[in-house]
Amino acid sequence: MQKKTGFENSPNQRSKMKKNIKLVLSYDGNAFSGWQRVDNAKENKPSIQKLLEEKIEEITGQKEKVTGSGRTDAGVHALGQVANVQVDTEYSEEQMKHELNERLPAEIRVMDVTFVGASFHSRYDAVSKTYLYRIDTKERECVFTRKYVYPAGGHLDLNAMREAASYLVGTHDFKGFCTDRKDGKPTVRTITEIRITEEKNNYHGQEVRIYVTGNGFLYHMVRIIAGTLLEVGRSERDIESVRRALEEKDRSLAGQTLSSIGLCLEKVEYKK
Amino acid sequence: MQKKTGFENSPNQRSKMKKNIKLVLSYDGNAFSGWQRVDNAKENKPSIQKLLEEKIEEITGQKEKVTGSGRTDAGVHALGQVANVQVDTEYSEEQMKHELNERLPAEIRVMDVTFVGASFHSRYDAVSKTYLYRIDTKERECVFTRKYVYPAGGHLDLNAMREAASYLVGTHDFKGFCTDRKDGKPTVRTITEIRITEEKNNYHGQEVRIYVTGNGFLYHMVRIIAGTLLEVGRSERDIESVRRALEEKDRSLAGQTLSSIGLCLEKVEYKK
Repeated sequence: MQKKTGFENSPNQRSKMKKNIKLVLSYDGNAFSGWQRVDNAKENKPSIQKLLEEKIEEITGQKEKVTGSGRTDAGVHALGQVANVQVDTEYSEEQMKHELNERLPAEIRVMDVTFVGASFHSRYDAVSKTYLYRIDTKERECVFTRKYVYPAGGHLDLNAMREAASYLVGTHDFKGFCTDRKDGKPTVRTITEIRITEEKNNYHGQEVRIYVTGNGFLYHMVRIIAGTLLEVGRSERDIESVRRALEEKDRSLAGQTLSSIGLCLEKVEYKK
Repeated sequence: MQKKTGFENSPNQRSKMKKNIKLVLSYDGNAFSGWQRVDNAKENKPSIQKLLEEKIEEITGQKEKVTGSGRTDAGVHALGQVANVQVDTEYSEEQMKHELNERLPAEIRVMDVTFVGASFHSRYDAVSKTYLYRIDTKERECVFTRKYVYPAGGHLDLNAMREAASYLVGTHDFKGFCTDRKDGKPTVRTITEIRITEEKNNYHGQEVRIYVTGNGFLYHMVRIIAGTLLEVGRSERDIESVRRALEEKDRSLAGQTLSSIGLCLEKVEYKK
């Protein structure tokens, strides 16, 4: 319960007391329709944004917009999504985290709550994001990872994948590597790193992990990059074709859009 | 569809053609009521044994008992459970695996099918089993591991746990480390190894993993061993008390029975 402050009827006073709350969130994408609140959605899964706004309202009595660092699509997971919301509360950071987790379903957890300066904006202030795309390269189905890892089956040529990835690092027009939303918005982005590792997972699986870090991502961009690199790893496409898809800004020259199942927003970074 | 062989009406001929099929199974314990078929069960989750028997019957037209290397309890996972069933089939090993996986829910997978000698028995012939108990030692809730790892929260003293575990290795009467079923059956078992590791998991978690290998396990034995070692790791119990619980064969002197959530049957081994 919120304590009464005596300022409830004074909008001016009230706005002075608002806290800007930064949330670090982890969620299992399988349980949600994606980040964005869609009013009158037909989908029976809730959106993450809507769910958070409802719980914030339950806790504080205030209907406020929760802003995410970006919209993750339906099915996409997050280990460290960041969001912020401005509300009037007397709860401490720890209390707010506890109150939210008490009310949220187990498939989403608030990992961290911090009160930040009034100017902090989870989307505009983000300087980089890292996405992880996980690919299982053993020819098997795994009951434990099936909702989190893309089952590609079979050996991948990591050296070829890394060489192809190197063409994508830097500042480029990624028009060929996104699903065009026909909104005319700029498609230039900077990828600072693509790191590709191979490791055993907890279930005797063998995974190739593609970590992509950049200043921002276009619609489906990481999934198309992963799909293109997967085709290179399988020797279904040559390395040169990746450079060509980039230069010619032609979506049809890049690879398939891989499923959301293997995609996870690992972290979002801000200026210190 | 099975090809007709012309022997359908001749029980003698038919039994000669029976194949003894060894199955290696992986399952997510959350989806099942446990291994054992319970007729007229009230539980809405299916038992693994019953499900396999139904699918075998669908494929071969024969109602046969599927025998497991042991009964895993409700909620317990398996990476490499072994079972066998004797049926008359003209399918190859690969075809049988395919037919089963086509029909089984995604939470259980047949990892391997082999036709073995008529005398092979998945329970009697097992020479050792390895169980894994997973404990998350970070103070956090994880949306990805919450159904597979026990959330213990906080540092554990691994050296103390390993020393306590060393008392349990060998041939002992484990009466103090099982839930008594009052069936008067012998409670002497041999543990050949308890290996305790600490590692990061795929989701930035920190896990302590307790691998227990032995010739057989009593009811709740691994979960009580894990619970006892957890208490040692937390310095809630001294190492000496573990030896005493074993020697005095007194359940009340051992630790808590940990939840099934962290338990997984890793593998079952047979004579070569």
